[in-house]
Amino acid sequence: MLPKTFLDTMKHSMQAQQAEFLQQGKPVFSGPAALEHFAGWWKDREKPGHIVLLCDTNTASFCLPRLMKALPADVRISEIVIPQGEKSKSIATCQQVWEQLTRLGIGRKDVLISLGGGVVTDLGGFAASTYLRGISFVHVPTTLMAMADAALGGKNGIDFGGAKNRVGLFAFAECTVCDPVFLETLPAQEWRSGSAEVFKHALIADADLWKILEEQGCTASSLPDLLHRIQRVKIDVVHRDPYERGVRKILNFGHSIGHALESESLEKDRVPFTHGEAIGRGMMIETEIGLRLAKMSAEESAMVCRVLEQHFGKADLRHYSAEALMKWIRLDKKNDGARVRMSLLTGIGRCDWDVEVKEQLILEVLMDFGAAA
Amino acid sequence: MLPKTFLDTMKHSMQAQQAEFLQQGKPVFSGPAALEHFAGWWKDREKPGHIVLLCDTNTASFCLPRLMKALPADVRISEIVIPQGEKSKSIATCQQVWEQLTRLGIGRKDVLISLGGGVVTDLGGFAASTYLRGISFVHVPTTLMAMADAALGGKNGIDFGGAKNRVGLFAFAECTVCDPVFLETLPAQEWRSGSAEVFKHALIADADLWKILEEQGCTASSLPDLLHRIQRVKIDVVHRDPYERGVRKILNFGHSIGHALESESLEKDRVPFTHGEAIGRGMMIETEIGLRLAKMSAEESAMVCRVLEQHFGKADLRHYSAEALMKWIRLDKKNDGARVRMSLLTGIGRCDWDVEVKEQLILEVLMDFGAAA
Repeated sequence: MLPKTFLDTMKHSMQAQQAEFLQQGKPVFSGPAALEHFAGWWKDREKPGHIVLLCDTNTASFCLPRLMKALPADVRISEIVIPQGEKSKSIATCQQVWEQLTRLGIGRKDVLISLGGGVVTDLGGFAASTYLRGISFVHVPTTLMAMADAALGGKNGIDFGGAKNRVGLFAFAECTVCDPVFLETLPAQEWRSGSAEVFKHALIADADLWKILEEQGCTASSLPDLLHRIQRVKIDVVHRDPYERGVRKILNFGHSIGHALESESLEKDRVPFTHGEAIGRGMMIETEIGLRLAKMSAEESAMVCRVLEQHFGKADLRHYSAEALMKWIRLDKKNDGARVRMSLLTGIGRCDWDVEVKEQLILEVLMDFGAAA
Repeated sequence: MLPKTFLDTMKHSMQAQQAEFLQQGKPVFSGPAALEHFAGWWKDREKPGHIVLLCDTNTASFCLPRLMKALPADVRISEIVIPQGEKSKSIATCQQVWEQLTRLGIGRKDVLISLGGGVVTDLGGFAASTYLRGISFVHVPTTLMAMADAALGGKNGIDFGGAKNRVGLFAFAECTVCDPVFLETLPAQEWRSGSAEVFKHALIADADLWKILEEQGCTASSLPDLLHRIQRVKIDVVHRDPYERGVRKILNFGHSIGHALESESLEKDRVPFTHGEAIGRGMMIETEIGLRLAKMSAEESAMVCRVLEQHFGKADLRHYSAEALMKWIRLDKKNDGARVRMSLLTGIGRCDWDVEVKEQLILEVLMDFGAAA
């Protein structure tokens, strides 16, 4: 990096004043004024020659018009639209994005804005940070899941060979804009899907937040107050360990089993689980594993499972084979060689990481949830 | 990053003592003792569970046996072999590498070693730093081109849509091992190809080195003495500007035209130009452009072109169309929107960057070198 001038520092602090959070020094605008702050943010920045908006077929209709008002005038703006859904998080779609960036003549000083849920922000961040060895990108998450989780923390990438997020890298958005206005058009299923990450953040690091969720649930009326609190958990953990050498792994609670379930369902089911439905079930099953390893009391784990079941339905694995799920679990990025390692609760609001879990125990628990032997 | 312990610092300084250079704090072992130092390097490092060797069909035969002796005992070692040649620097080959890494069960604590020329190190660095959001990788360049240029400086990536290095990122090898023993089996054409980058480093930043090359050429007998000096130019420039915001662009001298020629030849010719043949010609043509922009004296530019012509042959563009080459030049990563920008010599050992060059002038010069209108 070239040395910062005094002016850069000034600008930076102006942005920082409006931002609810900073990630690696980069602003996260969050809350009902986020789009307005974003509109102002451009004034302190060198104007790009060209802005590319990456949308999916949903956000292109419902969200794009609102975003347009927050973009600078006199800049060329182009759109790339990808099909809605998890299947777009692929190397094939990524290649189409690289091709279109090339065709549009996007250069190193241009900016890509991802407008969408986790699929769009994960893919957009990856495509942008590998095109021309990296151009600047901005995340504008439009789902609860992306605002609470996917669009924060600098992880981006694609699924590969069926495995979730197999290919990707760490790169932080130059700016992240979380405006609840986009949640107004969010379908109920997407809402529930996103709330899984909300419950997860409470469970791993904020017992008081868990109490609130237990009483009020995660609804449109309670969310505006809760959003900052949820985001704070994620941003604090990422700040302590941005490249996931240690404590950041607690953010993966529920994901060792949840990702396996999501991958298997995506391959097998006509209507696959959403990310949140899979993670909700993953959290219940991993809570049970934690109980059997005496990481957590029977009372607390029963309470966690009861509340999660109310929100996400029963973790019923009758249509799945334990060995098929195990095959995906073995691919988990947190594993160490042949040893499966999970992040497991040690209480409500507390989580341990790098816990070795024997395959035999995992298989037993999966079968107790109904998976075929 | 987690805080460094005292022990880490100690280890680091031990590695630094043996290394000829450090890049972002990471050692570059260079010279006849490089493999030996590499063998010792493992002792100061947590032992990986699994090492993957990425080779091409040539290096698997000629270089692998020598490298094996420098690897730690009691570690599982696997090989991935890709076809020799520039066509392997593609997203298709990269996907095969990701697939094989997955099949081998490579995890975050394992290491990928790229053993080969620039194609292997560029592809290996990219595949490793995007697999599981980045695993550690080591570069063991086996060609003059890779030792003088490609394997240093943290750039990696693949060609895409025909354009050179369109997709990639910056990531520095954990360790780089440049042992001239590998050059013993290097075919003459590869030797000449690599010497283009040697001449380039002299031209942009080391007038005394240019004098030596002018008198002695770049041959196997002079190389061992010259290698450190050549590498110093690159490493110094990269140290001043690792992410190519400014001065690092001088390393692209000869590449605006050279890459266009290489891409066009790769698409069109039965026996395409090597990278060095293309860059050698690119340097002659860009020297002529610099002359016409009055960046350089007629005397110096004539001398540069004469010496380059002796080594790389005439820059004869009769088989190419100026407009077809222009199409590739427009894709150059250094351009700013629709404006073509080049790095041009301002004398021997001096280079300017971000020089705007009008398309009309480029077309004229290409035609003066024989390209069809």
